[in-house]
Amino acid sequence: MTKSRKNTLSVIPLGGVTEIGKNMLVLECNDDIIVVDAGLKFPTEELPGVDLVIPNIAYLKSNKEKVRGIILTHGHEDHVGALSFVLDEINVPVYGTSLTVGIAGTKLMDRNKLDKGDYSLNVINPEDSLQLGCFTINFFRVNHSIPDGVGLAIETPAGLVVHSGDFKIDQTPVDGRVMELNKLAHYGDRGVLLFICDTTNVEKPGYTLSEKVVGETLKIIFERSERRIIVTTFASNVHRLQQIINAAVAYGRKVALAGRSMINIANVALDLGYLQIPSDILLEVTEANKLPPEKVVIITTGSQGEPAAALTRMSQGTHRQVKIVSGDTVVISASPIPGNERLVARTIDNLFRLGARVVYKVDGTVHVSGHASVEEIKIMINLLKPKYVLPFHGEYRHKIHFANLVANMGIPESHVIKAECGERWEFQRQKVALGGKVAAGEIMGDGLGIGDVGNIVLHDRQSMAENGLVVVVLVIDPNTGTLISGPDIVSRGFIYIRENMELVNEAKIIISKMLASLDKRQLDNRLYLKKCIIKSLSSFIFKKIERKPMILPIITEYCEKRSI
Amino acid sequence: MTKSRKNTLSVIPLGGVTEIGKNMLVLECNDDIIVVDAGLKFPTEELPGVDLVIPNIAYLKSNKEKVRGIILTHGHEDHVGALSFVLDEINVPVYGTSLTVGIAGTKLMDRNKLDKGDYSLNVINPEDSLQLGCFTINFFRVNHSIPDGVGLAIETPAGLVVHSGDFKIDQTPVDGRVMELNKLAHYGDRGVLLFICDTTNVEKPGYTLSEKVVGETLKIIFERSERRIIVTTFASNVHRLQQIINAAVAYGRKVALAGRSMINIANVALDLGYLQIPSDILLEVTEANKLPPEKVVIITTGSQGEPAAALTRMSQGTHRQVKIVSGDTVVISASPIPGNERLVARTIDNLFRLGARVVYKVDGTVHVSGHASVEEIKIMINLLKPKYVLPFHGEYRHKIHFANLVANMGIPESHVIKAECGERWEFQRQKVALGGKVAAGEIMGDGLGIGDVGNIVLHDRQSMAENGLVVVVLVIDPNTGTLISGPDIVSRGFIYIRENMELVNEAKIIISKMLASLDKRQLDNRLYLKKCIIKSLSSFIFKKIERKPMILPIITEYCEKRSI
Repeated sequence: MTKSRKNTLSVIPLGGVTEIGKNMLVLECNDDIIVVDAGLKFPTEELPGVDLVIPNIAYLKSNKEKVRGIILTHGHEDHVGALSFVLDEINVPVYGTSLTVGIAGTKLMDRNKLDKGDYSLNVINPEDSLQLGCFTINFFRVNHSIPDGVGLAIETPAGLVVHSGDFKIDQTPVDGRVMELNKLAHYGDRGVLLFICDTTNVEKPGYTLSEKVVGETLKIIFERSERRIIVTTFASNVHRLQQIINAAVAYGRKVALAGRSMINIANVALDLGYLQIPSDILLEVTEANKLPPEKVVIITTGSQGEPAAALTRMSQGTHRQVKIVSGDTVVISASPIPGNERLVARTIDNLFRLGARVVYKVDGTVHVSGHASVEEIKIMINLLKPKYVLPFHGEYRHKIHFANLVANMGIPESHVIKAECGERWEFQRQKVALGGKVAAGEIMGDGLGIGDVGNIVLHDRQSMAENGLVVVVLVIDPNTGTLISGPDIVSRGFIYIRENMELVNEAKIIISKMLASLDKRQLDNRLYLKKCIIKSLSSFIFKKIERKPMILPIITEYCEKRSI
Repeated sequence: MTKSRKNTLSVIPLGGVTEIGKNMLVLECNDDIIVVDAGLKFPTEELPGVDLVIPNIAYLKSNKEKVRGIILTHGHEDHVGALSFVLDEINVPVYGTSLTVGIAGTKLMDRNKLDKGDYSLNVINPEDSLQLGCFTINFFRVNHSIPDGVGLAIETPAGLVVHSGDFKIDQTPVDGRVMELNKLAHYGDRGVLLFICDTTNVEKPGYTLSEKVVGETLKIIFERSERRIIVTTFASNVHRLQQIINAAVAYGRKVALAGRSMINIANVALDLGYLQIPSDILLEVTEANKLPPEKVVIITTGSQGEPAAALTRMSQGTHRQVKIVSGDTVVISASPIPGNERLVARTIDNLFRLGARVVYKVDGTVHVSGHASVEEIKIMINLLKPKYVLPFHGEYRHKIHFANLVANMGIPESHVIKAECGERWEFQRQKVALGGKVAAGEIMGDGLGIGDVGNIVLHDRQSMAENGLVVVVLVIDPNTGTLISGPDIVSRGFIYIRENMELVNEAKIIISKMLASLDKRQLDNRLYLKKCIIKSLSSFIFKKIERKPMILPIITEYCEKRSI
């Protein structure tokens, strides 16, 4: 632990920089720490079998007594999804707007099967400020693809820090709550030390379209659809849900929801008043199935082609309640997250095969982004006039584009903090310096376990996936060093053994010969013996068929006295 | 084998329909078969460890004596890449234009380490026609992202079949050879029975931009680059290479090539006159390194972020000859093939990290497609006026978009043949009917082996990748049924065993107890015993940590007489 000087502000990202996902930012000053967001990341194909990735919070654990609270900017998984794991380690108060806390609370109950009373979840009013230690946190509303998102203006002993949250500037938002640019203008006039800015769309020129544009497209689609309509979108995009429901009402259709997260989030949004549905509109899928198809809209999960999601199952004909039939219109009201392109394309293909008319991005504006494009970022910079900027919510190239963009607006390269995960950036007397590094990185979650799947395990999984596995079993008498049984060879994911017995038999001979060349001392050295087996077998297999399966030698010792 | 009626034309796709890749189309009439293209497909992430996928040609093998030849439309891997495997099975004459045959020949030598004299590779002149059995094949030049591509107009006893090949209509092609629309007009007037059309870009409205647009962008980039320029593109995009070289000449730079396939294809294209390079321009990378950076352009492979490609290694600092330094300009003159987005993004990020200025699609038209957009497809339909159409080179949704497009132009749904791989479509007296199905599908290649990696092997690989593997070893005395050694448990890709010894020990007890509950008859039934082990262990592990590793029981028998 570094002992920092009085009134020095440390800014330490534990995630969300040089990556999109697992957002978590630590602010530390004197004896106080506050944390902004506690998000998870969904793994890439390089992390086979991993369900989720969360930030390493070792630093927070070892400074537990300083942590005054966690502030959530909005309710997306990459901002709140790690909360239950974090609270297991440091049970500190959590603050957020009404919908954000509502969603976070549901997830806590989901994961921990505990009452949310075990935690301190606090709903903030964005008009009020929040005092946590030496930090005064003010909020400003932002527009995003989930309602009730906020950015933060944090007064610290070292100066004012503005955190954009995830944002876009929607001049015609669905809920009429435009982004509070007036507050930003005010902060800018007071003087902003540091602006932490969402850079997701910094590669995109111009402005991100208003959410209302999608509403217009939906009306046209509803106008032209003669039978059932099925719309998929992100469950948390409550404004999109509202617009689909509005279109349904306008065209005399009832609405049913499919998919667990769709139902969960809609319930939270309804309870908290973020979603307005006339009382007779919403019904169960089974009820909707009894209506004429032209009277029905189904809103469903599965916009990313996720294997278990409702729309994916519908597209494969395996959804119990919804069978896609010719004449159905399916609207994919979402963009594939990078990496999901093929899954989404496959879902679209399967829906077409079932005779549906599929409406997706090639057909018009059925989706808009929730993140600011270049011109919106420029507005923020001009309003806030920050001394330093820290790009977040982007990969490395986003930092570069952001640095180029702000350079054009008078912020020098040296004032752009290209922070990496775990770096401690210290601000004192309006100056910044890198003050070291804290423990940080990725913790993998797989099933119920968190942190027990590490690099070696993942490397082994990848290696087996690429090339399969060959197991060699020997039974040796430890007293005499004689081979009692084996070598037996079993493989998985390698080649069809039955059709390649010749190769297997040759391999056995190779190993037997190699064993015969070893003396008792060498045989007794199990590690050496295993290495010899791996070496002789892998070079034989590569020579024969140019493959490199993982080779797993198992040497079992004969123990005369045991029996079942 | 179906005995077809006289002068009935069978059209049988063995690949390239409902997929992008492994293009192969069989035309059969009377006792003659011709094959159009012999392509491979690069595997998706669902085929772990598979290097390539080729069409199943069982039908051609069992009709070997009928096959009159293989006609190649152009030199891309998805059209010529399976040739060596096909010729191993049926060594028939191959026909193509000069560059296509040049590239195919190089690949044959690469793969088979044989002299290409063993095969009959024939260069056709697109002005001449080719008689193969009852088929007369005429050629028309098309524009594409490789030079010397052709489409085919095949006179058959059942009528005229036009095959577009992969095409776009470039009104200002780099080599000045515009697509021969005049020939198409002529065929259209004669009457076209069937038009087989490239649908890759049928989702894209308007026209595909001319290759020359990229040349203009390159000139601007060269104008503004003060130090070394590195450009990556598909090696086979010879016109792109030509434009890069032209820009280099215009701005006084020398050119070096990096990456094996770049050098190979450039050599073939140079030899055959498809690439014009002033004699003093081309040099080795090691020579280029001695020049001032502002005098150098390096053209390299790696536009898809392929792990072993030259640019990828440069971006990781592991390329022996090219070290990226601050001030270098790197141009990614290609689009990511769907599925490669993340690899390409990572390469861009790594290049930025090394200080390079990276110019890619967000910065302007550094790449254009080689496939026709909607308006170009419409031109083809209007010129050819085909009775039937068969969409190829697309996934399922492309067929639907194509059907909608031609419906607007007067071709009824029933005349759009949505052929699947292996379907035999029979044409007789201007009518078409589905006449059955031949063996068809995917053959997987991994290392030197072709066809020995099948569904079970792939399923095992995926399963191990997702969840890891747990091996249980028992040594049993076959005479008494007693357990001599074990159960031993070894795992790979599961969890860290050393840190989870408790779980392992519990698992051993579970298995031992289960074994104790079996009688000798049950123990002797090895299959039953294995099932019992899998069942008890997997339910234990799932209960404990909610994971489902593959469980591999190995039962070894004790054989007293053997020794090393």
